[in-house]
Amino acid sequence: MSIRETDIPALARGCAVLGTGGGGDVRAGSLAAVRAIRAYGPVPLVRLAELPPDALVVPLSGIGAPTVSHEMIHGEDEPKRIAEEVERLFGRPPAAVMSSEIGGSNGVAPVAWAAQLGLPLLDADGMGRAFPEVQMVSMYVAGLPADLVIMSDVAGNVVTIRPVDGLWSERLARAVCVAAGSSALMADYVLTAGRARGAVVEGTVTRALEIGRATEDAADPLTALAAELGAVRLITGKLTDVERRTTGGFVRGTATIEGTGDDRGRTLVLELQNENLVAVEDNQVRAMVPDLITVVDTETAAAIQTEGLRYGQRVTVLAWPCDPLWRTRKGLDTAGPRAFGYDLDYVPVEELAHG
Amino acid sequence: MSIRETDIPALARGCAVLGTGGGGDVRAGSLAAVRAIRAYGPVPLVRLAELPPDALVVPLSGIGAPTVSHEMIHGEDEPKRIAEEVERLFGRPPAAVMSSEIGGSNGVAPVAWAAQLGLPLLDADGMGRAFPEVQMVSMYVAGLPADLVIMSDVAGNVVTIRPVDGLWSERLARAVCVAAGSSALMADYVLTAGRARGAVVEGTVTRALEIGRATEDAADPLTALAAELGAVRLITGKLTDVERRTTGGFVRGTATIEGTGDDRGRTLVLELQNENLVAVEDNQVRAMVPDLITVVDTETAAAIQTEGLRYGQRVTVLAWPCDPLWRTRKGLDTAGPRAFGYDLDYVPVEELAHG
Repeated sequence: MSIRETDIPALARGCAVLGTGGGGDVRAGSLAAVRAIRAYGPVPLVRLAELPPDALVVPLSGIGAPTVSHEMIHGEDEPKRIAEEVERLFGRPPAAVMSSEIGGSNGVAPVAWAAQLGLPLLDADGMGRAFPEVQMVSMYVAGLPADLVIMSDVAGNVVTIRPVDGLWSERLARAVCVAAGSSALMADYVLTAGRARGAVVEGTVTRALEIGRATEDAADPLTALAAELGAVRLITGKLTDVERRTTGGFVRGTATIEGTGDDRGRTLVLELQNENLVAVEDNQVRAMVPDLITVVDTETAAAIQTEGLRYGQRVTVLAWPCDPLWRTRKGLDTAGPRAFGYDLDYVPVEELAHG
Repeated sequence: MSIRETDIPALARGCAVLGTGGGGDVRAGSLAAVRAIRAYGPVPLVRLAELPPDALVVPLSGIGAPTVSHEMIHGEDEPKRIAEEVERLFGRPPAAVMSSEIGGSNGVAPVAWAAQLGLPLLDADGMGRAFPEVQMVSMYVAGLPADLVIMSDVAGNVVTIRPVDGLWSERLARAVCVAAGSSALMADYVLTAGRARGAVVEGTVTRALEIGRATEDAADPLTALAAELGAVRLITGKLTDVERRTTGGFVRGTATIEGTGDDRGRTLVLELQNENLVAVEDNQVRAMVPDLITVVDTETAAAIQTEGLRYGQRVTVLAWPCDPLWRTRKGLDTAGPRAFGYDLDYVPVEELAHG
């Protein structure tokens, strides 16, 4: 199949849900995708099994402060310069683009980058959700060496990093991003289709499309979305307090939801670091990273990103299980609660939420 | 000829004089050079004319805060990783190492890097002195594209920058350096011997050796040094005030010298930004960048670096003309007084000092 202009709204809705509050504003990625499809035509969506083992897959993502990347996602030269650098380094051109992060804008924008490069989009990503740091990708958890990062910025600079490990990768890429005006396009873990097997989260573009379509024309969008996700409804209520600060390119804070209707008298507090990371009620954790926690508009079931949380919004908080790779020991070391500074042992949402 | 262990003290003294207060502590570079020569043997010194036109010359320098680089200059892996990256990008190994900056530690340490790589050292550099910023090199003034920077740090990371211009080169390289712990080895403007003609300052390793030797066994080292340099003596006196602060990897400040002996009653103020940039007496500028201004011990004629300036030192300030390339319009735009924020029109030291 191919991704057409008419698919973008559903893809964007699904990516917003998978963004768990982060991953950048999907409107920016959607606009870029629509423009690129109009200019270059629909983007073929390929499964990993369809690619020959030595085909080069280029995982791409925008890196930077969300408030900056909105305006800077539209460049056409950045993906071209990264593709040129890939060809220079590997001796052959890339065969497919992959989203590094299906959640948020970074799940939709790769449609634009693939269109601009005349390449198919791989039906997979490196997270199955959104995460804030460069090393928090399935390729890292699978043990692939974090041996190459290629960055391209709006000024035209190209920076290639050969880091000794994923943590250095994050540290150096972040420094380059800040120096480049807090926004850059990044290729991380350029890999062959052969190596991608078992090291990427497959089917996530299709999954985002399905999630986006589940609420289309639904009589009860919230119930339809929760069913599609297999999600637990943590609370339905009103946003009564939002505390946010942006430091070092990251948004941190808390959001407090007071229950209404059947949930009257209950209070849920979300801990945020770009994404929604921990949900607490009466000093009991009800869901935690790497499981997915998304705040949606109670009426439309549209996901609300961290930047869009406002006092008085009528919201529902949904939580559902992450991809199994994040529940392995290395997965939890990489993106479990302690990786974000919470002194919590991970317990799966299925056990907690009904607890 | 070859550079032997016994040449290092003279080379270090000469590089310190050409450092005009900056370029890093020559003791660090000397120690590295002596160790490497003991391990790998003397380093052949080659003239540009001896290299075939397509031979790859790799200009190397340490980048970072001077106070950090002292301890970190000794790594053997950094030059090897840069040479590997050069070979990967150009398809052939480097043929010679060049000092990017003959002034200070960066003039001596390339002996170590060449020895470790088993390569000759080119008798040339990119400044003929020391300058604080990445784009302040002869290759930039000659109009060569600043299209490639390769950096290697003590942790083992390699970062390749393809900047759109020299200013981006400085900005991105500085950010990577800070993220890498404020110290890295850098190859800037990797170029063929053919392109190096007219784009490097030739003969400067030999020149540093001659300067270092001029004071060896001299009855009057100060007079011998001034004669060798063709330098004007701006003042002889006592350091009465030193004001320094380190911000963003740069040392800024002033040094005040009150005249003694024949110079009693006179006061000279030096403006410092890593290097000695402007010498002022009675509101009259007596020498300014890009001409060279060096503070030496009055008795031994040993150069004193910015970091080593102390109250009470008996010093003489010498000033002499820079390489003609720095007096061209592009040279002055790049490293003239206005490039450092001084609202001064450049006047050559020969005209000012006797003025």
